Amino acid sequence: MTASNLQTEIFEQPEAVRRLLDACQGSLPGDLRTFKGGFNYILIAARGTSDNAARFAQYLLQNRNHVPVMLAAPSVFSIYGQTPRLNGALVVGISQSGQSPDIVSVLAAGRAQGCPTISLTNDPASPLAEASDLVVDLRAGPEKAVAATKTYTASLAAVAMLSCALGSPEDNWTPRDEDWATLARVPAWMKETLDGVMAMAGSVERYHFMQTGLTIGRGYNYATAFEMALKIMELNSLAMLSYSSADFLHGPIGILRKDFPTFVVAHSGAMLEPTLQIMARFRQSGADITAITDSQKARALADISFNIPAGVPEWLSPLTDVLPGQVIGWQLAALRGLDVDNPRGLSKVTETI
Amino acid sequence: MTASNLQTEIFEQPEAVRRLLDACQGSLPGDLRTFKGGFNYILIAARGTSDNAARFAQYLLQNRNHVPVMLAAPSVFSIYGQTPRLNGALVVGISQSGQSPDIVSVLAAGRAQGCPTISLTNDPASPLAEASDLVVDLRAGPEKAVAATKTYTASLAAVAMLSCALGSPEDNWTPRDEDWATLARVPAWMKETLDGVMAMAGSVERYHFMQTGLTIGRGYNYATAFEMALKIMELNSLAMLSYSSADFLHGPIGILRKDFPTFVVAHSGAMLEPTLQIMARFRQSGADITAITDSQKARALADISFNIPAGVPEWLSPLTDVLPGQVIGWQLAALRGLDVDNPRGLSKVTETI
Repeated sequence: MTASNLQTEIFEQPEAVRRLLDACQGSLPGDLRTFKGGFNYILIAARGTSDNAARFAQYLLQNRNHVPVMLAAPSVFSIYGQTPRLNGALVVGISQSGQSPDIVSVLAAGRAQGCPTISLTNDPASPLAEASDLVVDLRAGPEKAVAATKTYTASLAAVAMLSCALGSPEDNWTPRDEDWATLARVPAWMKETLDGVMAMAGSVERYHFMQTGLTIGRGYNYATAFEMALKIMELNSLAMLSYSSADFLHGPIGILRKDFPTFVVAHSGAMLEPTLQIMARFRQSGADITAITDSQKARALADISFNIPAGVPEWLSPLTDVLPGQVIGWQLAALRGLDVDNPRGLSKVTETI
Repeated sequence: MTASNLQTEIFEQPEAVRRLLDACQGSLPGDLRTFKGGFNYILIAARGTSDNAARFAQYLLQNRNHVPVMLAAPSVFSIYGQTPRLNGALVVGISQSGQSPDIVSVLAAGRAQGCPTISLTNDPASPLAEASDLVVDLRAGPEKAVAATKTYTASLAAVAMLSCALGSPEDNWTPRDEDWATLARVPAWMKETLDGVMAMAGSVERYHFMQTGLTIGRGYNYATAFEMALKIMELNSLAMLSYSSADFLHGPIGILRKDFPTFVVAHSGAMLEPTLQIMARFRQSGADITAITDSQKARALADISFNIPAGVPEWLSPLTDVLPGQVIGWQLAALRGLDVDNPRGLSKVTETI
C-alpha cells in the first residue's frame, strides 16, 4: 500500500524546516535593516492555516521583539474597498499559495502607502510575492494533500526566523545569534515528537465516535489549538471548537459535560500554570482530557497524553506541539476510511475576496 | 409568572441605547480632540462578549474612520509580563464590569507609555475606568442575568459613538453630525426588530434537538456571528462554531452535511453578495439555513428567516441583527427548562489574568 500524500508530508516536516533554515543560514533574504525603526507595528494578512501561523507571530513578535502585531481584516481592503491609513506599519502576508486576492489586496495597499512589505509563501513567483519587498520562500516543496501540514510548520519556522532576524528596539534591532542556534535544534525535536506520537498512534481509535470536540491553547500555543482543530475538522468533517483558556472561561465553559472531548496544549513555560488550572476545572466537569504536553503535572491531570520531548522552549513549541494534532487528524480519518488526501468539499487553493 | 432577568434585559435594550445616546448628546465625554492626530492605530483589549464588541470596532473604525485597529493579546502583558512598544497607539478597553485584570493590564501599559486611553464600561468607578483618560459610561443599569445582552448592545452603541465623534484623517477629524443623526434612529429599529422576532418566537422549537451548530457573519456582522453563537452556547450548553464566510471556506466547510444547523447573518450592503454566494453553497450541501436578514434574496435561500426591518445601514446593523440571536438563545433555553438567568457553570464577572 502506497503512503498517502498526507502521510509523506507529515513525515517530511523536520526535513522541510531544516531545508528552510539551511537556505537562510542565520539571516533573512534581503536587507531587513532598511526596515528597522521604520515601523511601529506589524500588520499580518493571512487566512486558514496561514492565519494560525499569524496567531503564532502575534505572540512571538510581541513577546520577544516588543513590536505590536495586528491581524488584518482583509475584507476592509477587498470587499469594503477602504484604505486605512497604514503609516507606521510593516505589512506581512502569509500564504502557502500566494494566490488569495484578499491577502494580496492588503499587501498592495501597504505598498501603495509606502509601507515595507514581506511575504512568507511557498511560491516565490506568486502575486503575493510580487507585492512584497522581501520574500521568504518556504521551500517546503509541492504540498499535494489538501490539508496543509509542512507548509504550516515551514510558515511557523519562517515567523521564528523573522523574530530572530529582527531583534527589538531595546537592543537596537540586533539579530539574535543564540536564538538562531536554538531554532536550528527544532528539526530534531520535531523528529523526536513524531516518533513518540507514532508509537501511540493506535490509541487514536478512542476518538472513533467523537462527534464534536474542543481544543485549548493560549499564548504561543493559541495557534496550535486552532491548527489542531482545523486538521481534525478538515480531515474528518467534525465540528471542533478552539479557544484560549481565558476566552473559554468567559462563557463557553458551560458546554463542558461528562466525557466531552477536550484537547489541551500544556507546554512548560509561563503559560503552564494557568493551563494546569483550567485542566483541573475540566477534570471537575468530567470532560475527557487529551494533553499535548512535556509536563508531568499536565499528564497527571489528563486521560491520555501525547508527549513532547523535554527541552523545547515555549517560544518554539508550536513547531512540535502541532504534530500530535496532525497525526490524530490523519489517523482518525484513516481508520474511518476517509480520503485523507482529498477531504470532502475542500480544494487545495482557496481564493477568497 | 415573573419575567426572568434575561427577558427583562433583552427588552430593555432599545431604551438602554437611547439613554446612552441621550446622555452624550452628539459628543463623547471629555475632549477627544486632544487625541486626534496623536495616534496612528487603535489597540483594543476585551474578553468574551466585549471582545465581540471589539470585533465590531475593528470593522467600523477601519472602514469608516480609516484607522487601523488591533485586538490585543492580553496575556502578552499579563502572563508573559512583556511590554510591546505602544508608540502610535490609542488604547481602548471594553468591559462591562471593568474588573478583569488582564484587560486592565493592557490599559495600564498604554498609560505608562504615554498613550491616550479610553474605556467603555458599565462601571465608571471600576479599575478599568481608573486606568483611562476618557471613560464612556455605558449607563445600561445593573445587568443581573449572567448572559450579557444590554451591555453588549450598549457597548456596540458606544463604539459607534466613538466612530461618529472621531471622524477621519481625510476630513481633518471632523465629528460626523449626520452619522449621529442616523445613530439616533437605532433604538426604534431595535424595538421593531424585537417585535418581529417575538412574533415568531414559537418557531424556536425547531432547534429543540440541535446538538451543535454554526454561525456565519462577515465584516460588520462578524461580531454578530460570534455573539449569537456565544448566547446560544452560554444559555444552552451547546457547542457552536463561528466563522467569517471567508475563513469558513478555508477548511471548515467540509463539516457541512444534510440538516447541519447554520445561522447566517445576511444584511444589505457590501457584504450581501458574498454572503448570498455562501448561502447557495450551504443549500447545495443540504445544510439547514436560518437567515437573520433584511434581504428578500437571502430569505429565498433560507429554511427560516428572522427579519430585520428595512433601512438599517450595514454599519449599524450589528445593533439590530444580534437581537434574534439573543431571543433564540433565550427561548431555546426556556423551552428546554434551563435556568436562563444562571446558566450552568457560569458566573457574571469573570476575572482572568
